Amino acid sequence: MPSDLSPLLKPQSVAIVGVSQNPARIGGRLFRYLTGHGFEGQLALVNPKYGQMGGVECYPSVSAIPFQTDCALVAVPGKHVVPVLKECAQNGVRAAVIFSSGFAEMGGDGRKAQDLIRGLADESNMHICGPNCIGLINFHEKTALSFSQLLETEHLIPGNIGFISQSGALGGSMVNRAQDRDIGLSFFISSGNEAALGVSDFIKHLVLYDQKTEVIAAVVEGFKDGAQFIEAAELALEHGKPLIVLKTGVTDVGQKAAASHTGSLTGSDAVIDAVFQQKGVIRVRHYDQLLQTASLFSKGCRPKSNRVGILTSSGGAGIIMADYYTKMGLQIPEPSPQTSLLAAKEIGTFGKVDNPFDLTGQIFSDPEMFSRCMKLFVNEERFDIIQVNVSMVAGKSSEQRGKMLLAAIEGCTKPVVSWWAAGGLSDPGIAVLNGSPVVPFRSPERCAEALQALVAYTQHAEQVKGTHAKNQPVSDPKRLKEAAQLLNTGAESLSEHESKALLKRYGIPVTRESVVRSVDDAVQFAEQLGYPVVLKIDSPDILHKTEADVIRLGVASREDLVNSYAEIMAAAARYDPGAGINGVSVQEMVSGGTEVIAGMSQDPQFGPTIAFGLGGIFVEVLKDISLRVTPLSKADAQQMVREIKGYPILKGIRGQAPADMDAVIDLLQKLSRLVEDFKEEIAEIDINPLLVFEEGQGAKALDALVVLKRKS
Amino acid sequence: MPSDLSPLLKPQSVAIVGVSQNPARIGGRLFRYLTGHGFEGQLALVNPKYGQMGGVECYPSVSAIPFQTDCALVAVPGKHVVPVLKECAQNGVRAAVIFSSGFAEMGGDGRKAQDLIRGLADESNMHICGPNCIGLINFHEKTALSFSQLLETEHLIPGNIGFISQSGALGGSMVNRAQDRDIGLSFFISSGNEAALGVSDFIKHLVLYDQKTEVIAAVVEGFKDGAQFIEAAELALEHGKPLIVLKTGVTDVGQKAAASHTGSLTGSDAVIDAVFQQKGVIRVRHYDQLLQTASLFSKGCRPKSNRVGILTSSGGAGIIMADYYTKMGLQIPEPSPQTSLLAAKEIGTFGKVDNPFDLTGQIFSDPEMFSRCMKLFVNEERFDIIQVNVSMVAGKSSEQRGKMLLAAIEGCTKPVVSWWAAGGLSDPGIAVLNGSPVVPFRSPERCAEALQALVAYTQHAEQVKGTHAKNQPVSDPKRLKEAAQLLNTGAESLSEHESKALLKRYGIPVTRESVVRSVDDAVQFAEQLGYPVVLKIDSPDILHKTEADVIRLGVASREDLVNSYAEIMAAAARYDPGAGINGVSVQEMVSGGTEVIAGMSQDPQFGPTIAFGLGGIFVEVLKDISLRVTPLSKADAQQMVREIKGYPILKGIRGQAPADMDAVIDLLQKLSRLVEDFKEEIAEIDINPLLVFEEGQGAKALDALVVLKRKS
Repeated sequence: MPSDLSPLLKPQSVAIVGVSQNPARIGGRLFRYLTGHGFEGQLALVNPKYGQMGGVECYPSVSAIPFQTDCALVAVPGKHVVPVLKECAQNGVRAAVIFSSGFAEMGGDGRKAQDLIRGLADESNMHICGPNCIGLINFHEKTALSFSQLLETEHLIPGNIGFISQSGALGGSMVNRAQDRDIGLSFFISSGNEAALGVSDFIKHLVLYDQKTEVIAAVVEGFKDGAQFIEAAELALEHGKPLIVLKTGVTDVGQKAAASHTGSLTGSDAVIDAVFQQKGVIRVRHYDQLLQTASLFSKGCRPKSNRVGILTSSGGAGIIMADYYTKMGLQIPEPSPQTSLLAAKEIGTFGKVDNPFDLTGQIFSDPEMFSRCMKLFVNEERFDIIQVNVSMVAGKSSEQRGKMLLAAIEGCTKPVVSWWAAGGLSDPGIAVLNGSPVVPFRSPERCAEALQALVAYTQHAEQVKGTHAKNQPVSDPKRLKEAAQLLNTGAESLSEHESKALLKRYGIPVTRESVVRSVDDAVQFAEQLGYPVVLKIDSPDILHKTEADVIRLGVASREDLVNSYAEIMAAAARYDPGAGINGVSVQEMVSGGTEVIAGMSQDPQFGPTIAFGLGGIFVEVLKDISLRVTPLSKADAQQMVREIKGYPILKGIRGQAPADMDAVIDLLQKLSRLVEDFKEEIAEIDINPLLVFEEGQGAKALDALVVLKRKS
Repeated sequence: MPSDLSPLLKPQSVAIVGVSQNPARIGGRLFRYLTGHGFEGQLALVNPKYGQMGGVECYPSVSAIPFQTDCALVAVPGKHVVPVLKECAQNGVRAAVIFSSGFAEMGGDGRKAQDLIRGLADESNMHICGPNCIGLINFHEKTALSFSQLLETEHLIPGNIGFISQSGALGGSMVNRAQDRDIGLSFFISSGNEAALGVSDFIKHLVLYDQKTEVIAAVVEGFKDGAQFIEAAELALEHGKPLIVLKTGVTDVGQKAAASHTGSLTGSDAVIDAVFQQKGVIRVRHYDQLLQTASLFSKGCRPKSNRVGILTSSGGAGIIMADYYTKMGLQIPEPSPQTSLLAAKEIGTFGKVDNPFDLTGQIFSDPEMFSRCMKLFVNEERFDIIQVNVSMVAGKSSEQRGKMLLAAIEGCTKPVVSWWAAGGLSDPGIAVLNGSPVVPFRSPERCAEALQALVAYTQHAEQVKGTHAKNQPVSDPKRLKEAAQLLNTGAESLSEHESKALLKRYGIPVTRESVVRSVDDAVQFAEQLGYPVVLKIDSPDILHKTEADVIRLGVASREDLVNSYAEIMAAAARYDPGAGINGVSVQEMVSGGTEVIAGMSQDPQFGPTIAFGLGGIFVEVLKDISLRVTPLSKADAQQMVREIKGYPILKGIRGQAPADMDAVIDLLQKLSRLVEDFKEEIAEIDINPLLVFEEGQGAKALDALVVLKRKS
């Protein structure tokens, strides 16, 4: 059960350790902001230099505080942090925020000191945030435990968005922007170096223990623990609290910068995409997209479909939104004939009224028409989402527009978003919408992205209901035992035949084949199979068989086989005289079908990851691979197949029959099962090529390689 | 020579036709805004209902105006527009802005009325803007000829950006946003339906006749005339005035909306991309990107290279910028050892200082370090661009930061951009930078995009200096004559052999082949070529030869040839008994190489467009095609080859030798030459497959088709 972090996030009593009379210093700011924003709990100051500050008692040390302290704010130089924490632990302090820097981000001794903090947190059960963070704010409780200049603001606007950021300065800046837009938060948590508590812990707390948080937003440079994040994401999805993440450190240069910033390790961005996709995490790509998207989600309204009706007071603005939504795969359906007729009357045309519906210059002479047209849209059954564009309206006109918009949507259960194209002249109108059910976006792009995320999230939540991959039954003991024996060869890899045997145990179809140790046996088995056959060396030590020249395809006769056998044995001996040879694998010769590849590798952060793609140039040149972490649900496997760029080839081009997609989906799930059973033992699986035949004809692994983890 | 539009854009005398006492109506607003913003020229009002308004004389008709009128503002109902314009023309009015709507955007009669306006403009030489527009503003001359509510602003900020928008409401909104950011403009021109003058005409005027305009920005829904736009873009490039365009109506739905908005036809978006790329037009994709990008260009500073030094007061913000620039192909080099040493001292570390350089919390205790570090960056030779990130600073601190930044860059010749991550609390700092050489971006994305555009534009301008494709010599008369004869067959298409003959005249290598009309001739030529050969029917009427089963590959012997010949003739007769048959084409059998395709089609807006791509799935599944309009420079052809996704295949994968790229580049230029010579005659050229051999071995067209334009 994840920890309830209330002593940290909702403390009744706080101590500022290292308080300062200098209002520019961290210790000074903490005091000023905490009291300035109206903290109502008990407060103790700690600094041997002072007796009191602003009427608040100042103690020489933590142990001198006469009451039970929930949370200590630690603003002392780096080298004093660990001693202070120890004192806190001894005195029953339940949580701490460490602002000091000079830890893992500096490497070397800093990393060691950070490990000490982690150890202390584990031993003492103290909830520790930081180090190298700017603290946290509980908006509903008016508890500002931060030195961020963000707190120069006069009012903290409470709301239902919990916001976590590894980067403090960035997070603080974003909160300031959110406040400008009247976007309320439940929490702002800067997690810094995450010596102990990390983003995932905070997400779990907000999901499970904080009713005021309905949406969670996070800025992440790197995940400390992929499994923890997956768990947090699953919890969030399960509890219907959308999790929206801006993951930075996407490129090599960015990742290097992230490593030196908060000491974060960042994994493969493609795997992160896959995990987010799979677990319903909404990934935003841009800075100002995060809290604007969260703001739309925070309104709570979910669309029934992706059909958008666009009402626009500028034709040009309508085109822009239509472009965005169309590119994003949302629908812009025509209105019903009845709506069309009524709308046409409003703009004095006899033609067909389209979607986007342009209010035209008519709105200047008759501003009330906006209300009537909005009503038409609210009642139109063909639209499940309403997009309103407001262009160049100034001052009172804009205020009037905002008010009419709100009046028209009373009782409306469809999400309504608005884009305001003008600048400061439209501020009065935007002010009317701030805090209302209609988010007033300033940017059409941010508006469209947020809406698309809302649609995608809603659809995903519908789809995954009850399909959790982890609900799959456990493998039966007999299979587990047999597979374990196959894996226990003592070598670093399995040979092709051993690899295929393992796959076969999990129901993955492989070529009919037999490993023989004499020409006679080879002939016998080949005749059983029928010519032509394939001959390959079978050895756990020769992984690059083409390079070693130990494969013969299309062996067509007994004579051919006898020669090929000898050639292969000779080539193997030349290539690696010390290689352990199991024998020669005689295999059926399979042709036709489409070449694909399937495999597994271990991501350093998220563990076993299944890969799927078309063979050849699609992988080599286009890097056209889909990924998912295990366990794989059927929906996951379906999406993997559908999302590759080469998917049209599987569907069948140039009049070819579609490939047996069901067989692939089934195979990917079986592969996932195998991997789940032996993820501690297997480092890598490579099925290449895997031939997929026409619909209903299945698939077959022609070659396979299982690489084992090195035992440490 | 393009027209000087000064009577329209810089009128000394203006008449408001259809002026109104009602300040909410167009005629009322025009009067209010024009006088309110301080127009200093002569003003006449026209409305038979009034004697004067606000002390300005009101005349019953245009002909009653006692002085020469440069520009008439026409704000009368649609049906009165043409009569009013006629009166204007008769009275020597030199220009008119038509605000009225109800023209091409309504179709039918509206379109006819618009054609009348165009005719009138042509006859009378009047410069006409609109109809269905919101007018224009000359910022330097304080001449506001518009009814946009944008003019509710108190001050119009003059500057060096000329801004043209087909959509009035959208354009007006963008100007309002620009004003909020203190981005000054020379002009805002809303071109509306463009009955006469269009975006391209305004661009040309701003390039040639307006010294105050140094950068041109435009919002375009559709180009009325592609050739005009290309001319305008070439002029802009030649005169060093960057042209930045937001082209909307990108998707089918968006294009449909554009058609009903200003009656614009939009062409293929891929061709527009190609034209922009080729002519150095900067394409922005997002609404608020246009004028922000223009703002960076308007500072005039151009980078020497793409090497960016990032100075950041938030590690997280540094990561974000590093990600953007890396993705965009800009470089983030390490600083020199000397800079690194000095920077390390500033943040009290002994380690290596990286780029992005994080100022760390150190900046709070020592704000002046910012100045010193900026100086380091300004002087660092490894950086040609400086990016400054400012995160959560509030009030006076932000003001101080802005001032230090400006002080530090005095005399700096490198572009300096800044991203301000916080919201309103940083307004004082941003206010310091407004109007300065440093653009204060609010969005990291907009900042990065603008900088990348600046780098790309600067590089492109360098590259194309003196390489104008139109400087190519004219084809020699002999070749022109021969080619004209080849094209003059009377059929709708050329046969394969005829098509190849045409290509060959332009130096494009084709298979050795001969069209014969008897088996004996076929045998004779085949023996000359040497077996195996290829046989194909040669007919201008059978375009789908595979479907018609009239191709035989690898014909290996005399006997084989005799049979194949008969089969082909029989198949042709079965497929289309009426087809005109030139004979049977006997061709050398060519193998090896990489299959590519090259061709030409006519874009409805931009004319002949050359296409290049890899064959097979690359074209069919991935739509992996590069495009350029003719004439094609060598640089254009080089870029075409490089920009396809399959380029690595041409470079050689799996140890294969690289393909003969030079041969392809040469061939594309020759194709362009052919197309330029005969663009009125040829509708389409398709060279498919074109085999490209190893470096130095050339390329060869195996099949070709030339489709002629239908004569009307």
